Amino acid sequence: MNIEDYTNEEIVENISALYRDRKFSEIKNIFKEINPTDIAAMYDEFTDEQRILFFRLLPKEEAAETFVELDGDTQESLILAFSDTELREVLDELYLDDTVDIIEEMPATIVRRILKNTDSQTRASINTLLKYPEDSAGSIMTTELVDLKKDNTVEDAFKRIRRTGVDKETIYTCYVTDKSRHLIGVTTVKELLLHEYEDKIEDFMETNTIFVYTHDDKETAANLFDRYNFLALPVVDMEQRLVGIITVDDAIDVLQEENTEDIHKMNAIVRTSEKPYLKIGVFETWKSRIPWLMLLMVSGTFTSMIINAFEDKLSALIVLTAFIPMLMDTGGNSGSQASVTVIRALSLNEIEMKDIFKVIFKELRVGILCGLSLASVNFVKILLIDKMLLGTEGITLLVDLVISLTLVVEIIFAKIVGCTLPIFAKKLKFDPAVMSSPFITTIIDALSLLIYFQLSSAILHI
Amino acid sequence: MNIEDYTNEEIVENISALYRDRKFSEIKNIFKEINPTDIAAMYDEFTDEQRILFFRLLPKEEAAETFVELDGDTQESLILAFSDTELREVLDELYLDDTVDIIEEMPATIVRRILKNTDSQTRASINTLLKYPEDSAGSIMTTELVDLKKDNTVEDAFKRIRRTGVDKETIYTCYVTDKSRHLIGVTTVKELLLHEYEDKIEDFMETNTIFVYTHDDKETAANLFDRYNFLALPVVDMEQRLVGIITVDDAIDVLQEENTEDIHKMNAIVRTSEKPYLKIGVFETWKSRIPWLMLLMVSGTFTSMIINAFEDKLSALIVLTAFIPMLMDTGGNSGSQASVTVIRALSLNEIEMKDIFKVIFKELRVGILCGLSLASVNFVKILLIDKMLLGTEGITLLVDLVISLTLVVEIIFAKIVGCTLPIFAKKLKFDPAVMSSPFITTIIDALSLLIYFQLSSAILHI
Repeated sequence: MNIEDYTNEEIVENISALYRDRKFSEIKNIFKEINPTDIAAMYDEFTDEQRILFFRLLPKEEAAETFVELDGDTQESLILAFSDTELREVLDELYLDDTVDIIEEMPATIVRRILKNTDSQTRASINTLLKYPEDSAGSIMTTELVDLKKDNTVEDAFKRIRRTGVDKETIYTCYVTDKSRHLIGVTTVKELLLHEYEDKIEDFMETNTIFVYTHDDKETAANLFDRYNFLALPVVDMEQRLVGIITVDDAIDVLQEENTEDIHKMNAIVRTSEKPYLKIGVFETWKSRIPWLMLLMVSGTFTSMIINAFEDKLSALIVLTAFIPMLMDTGGNSGSQASVTVIRALSLNEIEMKDIFKVIFKELRVGILCGLSLASVNFVKILLIDKMLLGTEGITLLVDLVISLTLVVEIIFAKIVGCTLPIFAKKLKFDPAVMSSPFITTIIDALSLLIYFQLSSAILHI
Repeated sequence: MNIEDYTNEEIVENISALYRDRKFSEIKNIFKEINPTDIAAMYDEFTDEQRILFFRLLPKEEAAETFVELDGDTQESLILAFSDTELREVLDELYLDDTVDIIEEMPATIVRRILKNTDSQTRASINTLLKYPEDSAGSIMTTELVDLKKDNTVEDAFKRIRRTGVDKETIYTCYVTDKSRHLIGVTTVKELLLHEYEDKIEDFMETNTIFVYTHDDKETAANLFDRYNFLALPVVDMEQRLVGIITVDDAIDVLQEENTEDIHKMNAIVRTSEKPYLKIGVFETWKSRIPWLMLLMVSGTFTSMIINAFEDKLSALIVLTAFIPMLMDTGGNSGSQASVTVIRALSLNEIEMKDIFKVIFKELRVGILCGLSLASVNFVKILLIDKMLLGTEGITLLVDLVISLTLVVEIIFAKIVGCTLPIFAKKLKFDPAVMSSPFITTIIDALSLLIYFQLSSAILHI
């Protein structure tokens, strides 16, 4: 079978059929054709018994690569089924940062078994890595890297890579350190290949090395990959001694997590889990959604108060009530457009605090344009559709004018509130993403109602 | 000066001072210490005269790297100031995909000058790359790659890399092709370094190569990097002949653009530009924001109609009006939490169409939990705050009950509508991101009002 012509589901079916017929060597051949990431994705469909059996059919290296990609529960059940020898074989093939990631997910008994089955040097490194705070650069780095000395020649470097490179996640960036492990330069295998064997590293290494500290935020580190197109980034301790590197694949994971987190925060979801959607329990999902819903619901007390204060006017001209939802939604949408654009620009470092007046001036002009165009369409729409077509009672030219004027004023306010709050949030060291649609909407609702009722009083004399 | 101790602003000031004193060689030394990306970021602060002068102070390679990172306007003004020789020097150092990106931004006269100053082979490659559709994998690939034959030895491979590698953006992944350029395998410099000089490539190359077609969407290609941790991905034509590769730095750019686009779409912004926030004009921003605002405003006609239909009931018990904003916002927020979570899970491939019932069942339970907890808090809050503390007239236990019941029912509806619409959108080949907060809010508003008024009629007999 030519594996590329089949979907994952067809392959799973095929494997299950072969399993029933006990044709294990054929299953083995199929797995040879599939990328470990894709094998891991199929594991959800297999029974516990199949999982351990199939795992034993994989060559050592592919087995380890598949293991890393499995979810925590499956990893746990496999480790429970492993003999000590099997566990040791898998651990031997894993990169150190992956081992640490797995340990962080496992219950204590399994962690003890893992640590028991690693050599003392690896165990020491694991323990060091486990100590870095959850969101720090240290927590996503690996300590396995190629380090050179500045008086090494290109030949020395290649010898060292050939001798020690097999266990390293990346060998393409090489780090030059002095006797006390201070980072003094960087070079790449590409540079090495383009120089003569007898050339000295110090003569062509790059010395203006960009690095992060172990305690820096992992998002800071990941953003450097986006900015500078790195394949790996060195991590140093407080004394600027090289302790590890972050590789681009982990940086991509952090960027994607960061984006998910921003998207969730922008929509009133508190971050609780990095697990995929279907793996997060109902109660856990509830916990991540209820805090903001509760807070925003209670803050609705303000809109109720405003409406109650203008109750007499509303009962005098009940048609005004009919346009409250439209006015609120349009204000909310206008505000969240501005806030979301600014939040994204802040997180991509396109704007800073010092740009606040440029931002406000721009949003003011956009607000005037949007307000005027929406208000003119709305003015005509109310006359044609609501008054003439639907025959809504109580609509007069003046009522229409009040609604349309409210639109202009509230949209300008919405744009300005929407663009300034995230910048202030960043200034005050809050996450700007929280200053998004739901929060802005709540403020704009109250503002819009106030504008609406004030204009009604002034123009309609009610 | 130790450059790392200064902020970019301080460096710019320092450089401007040196420029006034005409100390150009000192400026040159400062630039030597700075990464080209950071030099480019400072360019906004320089005058036109300074820009071209400073550019001439940079070593050839750094000059090209800086040039790539500049924005289109600055690139254009530099090219206009370049002599033909200077332009040729910069173009010589650029990678092909970067040249193509620059050409796509430039006016025709400059494109002609660029093409005039490249050799005929490069010109042919540029023209081929320019033909790929804007969002295709072909449009972000480069044709400069290391290709090997299967009977090459490791020694042959290294010779080839040393001879041709200097101009290649990446040399770490090497592609094995047959006589008609069909892709038959892949290997890496790491593998090459870990094998003996006389080993043949075909004996250890990876043959299950994952690739994309030139016409595939660039987002598809970028997502493969996230999934499989690639450094480079081969791109083939319809006949599966290797025509180029995509490198991980370009994949990261696409992922980030894609995230920005999703965030914007989720908030009713139509995509118009990939430029940074402050570079987008007011009119262009207006164009990207007005379509959805207009559509959603006009669809507010439905909420007006519903309120008008229940006008008599509202005027009989005007206090009901006071809670409309809170009910609408809570419904909208609940719905957008569900839709945003599902949209993100879809774009990370965590869920598919076949999971729809699992998703609905989960959101139903989350909806019930959220609905009940919000409603109970709301019931108590209305009694304590609105009735007792604020003395709002017209609040009875039954009114409170209607409002709280509406919350439960609307939140359950909101969660289900919120989670299903994005999945259907994907099924119908629309972008699920459009089925987000503003759109869902508009639907939930109408639903919430209907639920509210029906419950009012039934329970309050008005």
